[in-house]
Amino acid sequence: MTRFQPKNPDYRAIATDTFEQQRAMKTLGISIARLEPGEVDLAMDYSLDLTQQHGFIHAGVITAALDSTCGIATFTLMPAGAGILTVEFKTNLLAPARGERFAFRATVVKSGRTLTVCEARAYAAHDGVETLIATMSGTLMALPGREGARKDRALAPV
Amino acid sequence: MTRFQPKNPDYRAIATDTFEQQRAMKTLGISIARLEPGEVDLAMDYSLDLTQQHGFIHAGVITAALDSTCGIATFTLMPAGAGILTVEFKTNLLAPARGERFAFRATVVKSGRTLTVCEARAYAAHDGVETLIATMSGTLMALPGREGARKDRALAPV
Amino acid sequence: MTRFQPKNPDYRAIATDTFEQQRAMKTLGISIARLEPGEVDLAMDYSLDLTQQHGFIHAGVITAALDSTCGIATFTLMPAGAGILTVEFKTNLLAPARGERFAFRATVVKSGRTLTVCEARAYAAHDGVETLIATMSGTLMALPGREGARKDRALAPV
Amino acid sequence: MTRFQPKNPDYRAIATDTFEQQRAMKTLGISIARLEPGEVDLAMDYSLDLTQQHGFIHAGVITAALDSTCGIATFTLMPAGAGILTVEFKTNLLAPARGERFAFRATVVKSGRTLTVCEARAYAAHDGVETLIATMSGTLMALPGREGARKDRALAPV
Repeated sequence: MTRFQPKNPDYRAIATDTFEQQRAMKTLGISIARLEPGEVDLAMDYSLDLTQQHGFIHAGVITAALDSTCGIATFTLMPAGAGILTVEFKTNLLAPARGERFAFRATVVKSGRTLTVCEARAYAAHDGVETLIATMSGTLMALPGREGARKDRALAPV
Repeated sequence: MTRFQPKNPDYRAIATDTFEQQRAMKTLGISIARLEPGEVDLAMDYSLDLTQQHGFIHAGVITAALDSTCGIATFTLMPAGAGILTVEFKTNLLAPARGERFAFRATVVKSGRTLTVCEARAYAAHDGVETLIATMSGTLMALPGREGARKDRALAPV
Repeated sequence: MTRFQPKNPDYRAIATDTFEQQRAMKTLGISIARLEPGEVDLAMDYSLDLTQQHGFIHAGVITAALDSTCGIATFTLMPAGAGILTVEFKTNLLAPARGERFAFRATVVKSGRTLTVCEARAYAAHDGVETLIATMSGTLMALPGREGARKDRALAPV
Repeated sequence: MTRFQPKNPDYRAIATDTFEQQRAMKTLGISIARLEPGEVDLAMDYSLDLTQQHGFIHAGVITAALDSTCGIATFTLMPAGAGILTVEFKTNLLAPARGERFAFRATVVKSGRTLTVCEARAYAAHDGVETLIATMSGTLMALPGREGARKDRALAPV
């Protein structure tokens, strides 16, 4: 249960479908762990292919997962036919992304007619201990019906 | 020629080597296009494996490239033996990441004893036209000699 | 001369008028030093009333000036009747705000139909030397004609 | 009760004293409402002198209060003799700053040896209803003992 009421009764199918169309998520090995209105968790296993120079997961990969988490959480609250795009986000990195498995948890802070503000946190599970490794705050924009369907507008917020 | 004087005469070899140890960059198909003290350009070709739901490059992939560009630019100004880590960054997305090829250009704004502030921009080349698609401003932290070499501190800014 | 074409021929009078309606700017002693389409400079003298615990100007005051600079720069490019609001900004603080006089310079990076991205820098003049002390990157939103005139929407981006 | 253990038993007196030395806070009419280790609330009454063009509190004033809230919250966890400075912050503005009274609530997310990450929220009380109007995520830096006491370093993070 979340405090948000989805506008689209099919939110679950459509949000899941949108995530699955993100081929970058497949490439990075990221999947949906939980999906509620306004709240989405993603999960990712450690992979050497995603590391920086010290063998930890690259901050950009962590950010990609956090961005998708926020995007899908925002998407669950959109009316039917609407698209969304990311306007901006900030990531703070708190600890090395060291672990066997990673969790990314987004919560919508405010869902407006045009803009949504979303916050997300990344956690690393290492030897059975979960550590907060990064935070994100981001802004996303709704593209109403007809416009949301126009592919060429889809990621052009300004 | 840039306005920065590198502290480490081997900055080019060491910065290049650090970049090549980032396996995530290889996975994402990102390479160094230009490297000067405090200024680094990276390049990436379009790949369907890196896309979001509309076939454009995922904002997280763009951010990963911008973060590495800032990281390597910061690294060129470090003294010998020092490591660096990303503290935070903000990305603004201005236009869809649509194109055949992408460029990421970082410039150090201020290089301090402990913290460096760096700005970077991402451009998409599409049908021969280059478009600014994203901006980043970020903070990076130097880890002095011995500490920089300690792998377990490497990405833990706080 | 700037690279932007104002949509409203009266941009100068209207942007100046909007600035002068910001009573906080008067309280902080901030004034317009230069105003061109998409580019605005503000100026402020040092005042003990605006300081933090070490006698330098408070980071929040620097940010207030940077935000207004971006706001007015964005405003110069709006069509007649439109309002604007700040969606978000990030400030990086590079050096102490120590000096007799301060300059705040904003440049619009991209002016879109709905969103504008703007960057600004703050400089301190101290003993005849100008130092970069802070950077801002921000997002602003246009409120079209009728809506822009509705006071109650004026600062509610989401 | 908070989850943080202050390193300095005099944290309350010293944090309060530091806040009271911020003359900008007095100018803006901001005071401490609650102070615990790692958690600080500030309060401010509406004043016409702090408004933007529509009569709401200026986003820069809201940000100044959020920045001080984070600064004092961070300060409560510092060892004796240490100083702090703000490295960066991002503010998202969610709703107009309309109300008779405003509250600013900061919580430290992670307190590290060198860097602290802090989050804060601003609320407007209007006709008995409290509305979330802004969020901040920021990074602050500790200046150890001797260095923290050097006034000229005090706000120069880089």
